Amino acid sequence: MKIILSGASGAMGQTVAQVSDDILFGIDKIPSESNFPIYTDVETIPKEETDKADVIVDFSNVGFLPDILDFAVKNKKPIVIATTGLGEEENKKIEEAAQVIPVLVSSNMSLGINTLLKFLKPISNALGDGYDIEIIEKHHNRKKDAPSGTALSLAESLLEGNRYIEIGRNPSSGVRKKEEIGIQSLRGGTIPGEHSVIFAGDDEIVEIKHTALSRKIFANGAIEAAKFLSHQEPGLYEYAEVLEDE
Amino acid sequence: MKIILSGASGAMGQTVAQVSDDILFGIDKIPSESNFPIYTDVETIPKEETDKADVIVDFSNVGFLPDILDFAVKNKKPIVIATTGLGEEENKKIEEAAQVIPVLVSSNMSLGINTLLKFLKPISNALGDGYDIEIIEKHHNRKKDAPSGTALSLAESLLEGNRYIEIGRNPSSGVRKKEEIGIQSLRGGTIPGEHSVIFAGDDEIVEIKHTALSRKIFANGAIEAAKFLSHQEPGLYEYAEVLEDE
Amino acid sequence: MKIILSGASGAMGQTVAQVSDDILFGIDKIPSESNFPIYTDVETIPKEETDKADVIVDFSNVGFLPDILDFAVKNKKPIVIATTGLGEEENKKIEEAAQVIPVLVSSNMSLGINTLLKFLKPISNALGDGYDIEIIEKHHNRKKDAPSGTALSLAESLLEGNRYIEIGRNPSSGVRKKEEIGIQSLRGGTIPGEHSVIFAGDDEIVEIKHTALSRKIFANGAIEAAKFLSHQEPGLYEYAEVLEDE
Amino acid sequence: MKIILSGASGAMGQTVAQVSDDILFGIDKIPSESNFPIYTDVETIPKEETDKADVIVDFSNVGFLPDILDFAVKNKKPIVIATTGLGEEENKKIEEAAQVIPVLVSSNMSLGINTLLKFLKPISNALGDGYDIEIIEKHHNRKKDAPSGTALSLAESLLEGNRYIEIGRNPSSGVRKKEEIGIQSLRGGTIPGEHSVIFAGDDEIVEIKHTALSRKIFANGAIEAAKFLSHQEPGLYEYAEVLEDE
Repeated sequence: MKIILSGASGAMGQTVAQVSDDILFGIDKIPSESNFPIYTDVETIPKEETDKADVIVDFSNVGFLPDILDFAVKNKKPIVIATTGLGEEENKKIEEAAQVIPVLVSSNMSLGINTLLKFLKPISNALGDGYDIEIIEKHHNRKKDAPSGTALSLAESLLEGNRYIEIGRNPSSGVRKKEEIGIQSLRGGTIPGEHSVIFAGDDEIVEIKHTALSRKIFANGAIEAAKFLSHQEPGLYEYAEVLEDE
Repeated sequence: MKIILSGASGAMGQTVAQVSDDILFGIDKIPSESNFPIYTDVETIPKEETDKADVIVDFSNVGFLPDILDFAVKNKKPIVIATTGLGEEENKKIEEAAQVIPVLVSSNMSLGINTLLKFLKPISNALGDGYDIEIIEKHHNRKKDAPSGTALSLAESLLEGNRYIEIGRNPSSGVRKKEEIGIQSLRGGTIPGEHSVIFAGDDEIVEIKHTALSRKIFANGAIEAAKFLSHQEPGLYEYAEVLEDE
Repeated sequence: MKIILSGASGAMGQTVAQVSDDILFGIDKIPSESNFPIYTDVETIPKEETDKADVIVDFSNVGFLPDILDFAVKNKKPIVIATTGLGEEENKKIEEAAQVIPVLVSSNMSLGINTLLKFLKPISNALGDGYDIEIIEKHHNRKKDAPSGTALSLAESLLEGNRYIEIGRNPSSGVRKKEEIGIQSLRGGTIPGEHSVIFAGDDEIVEIKHTALSRKIFANGAIEAAKFLSHQEPGLYEYAEVLEDE
Repeated sequence: MKIILSGASGAMGQTVAQVSDDILFGIDKIPSESNFPIYTDVETIPKEETDKADVIVDFSNVGFLPDILDFAVKNKKPIVIATTGLGEEENKKIEEAAQVIPVLVSSNMSLGINTLLKFLKPISNALGDGYDIEIIEKHHNRKKDAPSGTALSLAESLLEGNRYIEIGRNPSSGVRKKEEIGIQSLRGGTIPGEHSVIFAGDDEIVEIKHTALSRKIFANGAIEAAKFLSHQEPGLYEYAEVLEDE
């Protein structure tokens, strides 16, 4: 499998380059040192180079997404999109692209988190109505946003009926409502990314916790998704399908 | 639903009596105070009383199991067996009974543990080969056996291929082998029963933990199983089927 | 040691009665079933009964505190105050009483929490400046306030210099500041009271966690405090002094 | 402060070189790439270079310890010894050296673990006799020994009276005895080094957990010890004294 790496000079792009020997070339507005060529403008990429690729892995940013999507569609290359912070406009463009090429979007590429995303709902269904759901996530002290995008994805996978998300319990929160899915965020030192989903019932607690010890897992997960996507028909895919394929 | 409670005077029997108003009568070699009659000999139970019952819940012991199984078969009553420490002889007798009546056996009746037993294998499959599996269980300091029967059941649900169970790591254990499922047991104070299954991979950890805060959860779980079993055909059932029924 | 139990009919009062055989009599506006007399009005307590007591344990409420303090001062009896939610007025009255009798006030009477309150600051000093401090507390879903009074006490024991308490991280919190002591609260099911103080440094984390599995520990802790207080001089005492006395 | 780094080419030696700009030169039987000279034979080190140093940090091995100790004594340089697996012979030699130069030995140089070693005993004393003590330690799957040397050091800091260490609970362990300090070890994936000391009492649990996210913390801790030791009189020092000095 030959990969085109979009966002090759960013922290995640460089991590993908570390864990994979299959990068054909990179794309990034800012060049960086690497074992493969990095193009700063998609227009300058030789057609014969692009033709050798099987799949695009995109760890760039929302601003660059339209360009790389157009490039993917034009060259009929499947694309794994790990870019976060997508809005309505981006999602519309992604759906259009998925008419022509295979597209997989996931805000968290790790095998473990995607396993949680797949099984949380069936576990919640098996436990039934008697359990309150709370999520705790912990990250290092430089993380800017709270809660994490992954915590929100985990909570969203459990929304149904009247359930809603409640962020950051404080003195004005009042007594917990049955329908709340609470999310509490903690930041400190170099704490590795941790997400814990707690089902708290009557004298019984089930807790499912994921810990990400390095960025490598997101790079490896994106490559797994790329392997899967490289032999699919056009369409919009979810990471759960990558798991099923194993 | 009307329940016959076998082992009515034991700790678990009394807990079932606390959480359910549907006990028709109890059976136990030793009588105890209760809101329903307790028969100390199955021979003395009036036939018309037994006929009113829908299901038997058995929290007695291995020694009494043959008697209560014979009673169930003779009266064509479904039976939920929560008795632990069953040997080859008991299992054979259970299989024979299951030709005639619905029988469900589980060493741990809690909803949460049975949810784990149902989903651990699919989760392990989704994570794939790159994860080491370890189990930690914690209990109060009066618990005699180690590891707990539940820890063994959880480990057994994950056995496949060359995997084997390794109990209590110590100086002679040597380096961990890929195929080990380690079980570590901890005892102290009044620590509530806790079972944690850890999938430890390359820079990624998934941990699934169950905490049992009181005996009530086993009583409630047995009653759920009884509800399920009361409308089944003869046969041997697993707790996972109770969960699917919800 | 003979104890006068104020707030004898409340949940905590009844728990004290369960763990101690040394209750001389109780005081409570509402009578309840008990092995000892309960007076609903301090005026009606026979002087010769009060004289037999060594110490008062108060688990009543802010409204009753002035009455029981007056009674303690008038009868020169040491008093252990476990009532929470004290304001400026109550604290002033307590200080006045401490001129005449031994008084000990603590919002959490458990041995474990008081051990944490004693050692958190020295541990924080040993670790030095490089650690961010965060507190997580978990409780059952009926608890009305958040964060718990105990979480606030733990945080306050670590305040110094520019440090301040920040409750409930949310999208508007921004990047964590060095001086924050974060408190995150989680509510669900019948989760036992849990308080965890996390010191998160550069590649190193120290976490100190306390779990309260029943109300009994607060009752036992109050009785330990009563034993200590019964042989002290007038003055205002802290729970840390009870620990040193052992 | 100018440091002589013994064991400069090993994994820990290279980590010290990463976190400190104060290495004057290294000593190691095997040379390696570095920003400072590495001598493979102490005899060839120019006297005028050694004279510039304030302190020696030793991360070598038991075999090399006699040589580096002789070198330290001959040149009157304080020495921080992080080498593990010391036997009777080595300890005798260390004590002799401590007559002439300041010596500090610790099997775990991290600030956090040494903070635990300092406070565990006072915390245990404050909690009193009613608590069972258990230790859990977790490490990556390539770690050869179990339990870890640090787990043993933590347990030893709590030994007193009839207490003894019991490693790896298994079916033949029988009911927990009051005097046991249990140690349970878990190995899997790339789990970061974690040590947890649990005090489990009657309805109350206190747990103190340390997590080491990288080797850097042992390097930093050794440098802190070196700073402390460089201005001490001859003698044998413990890491606890480094903490007090802050």
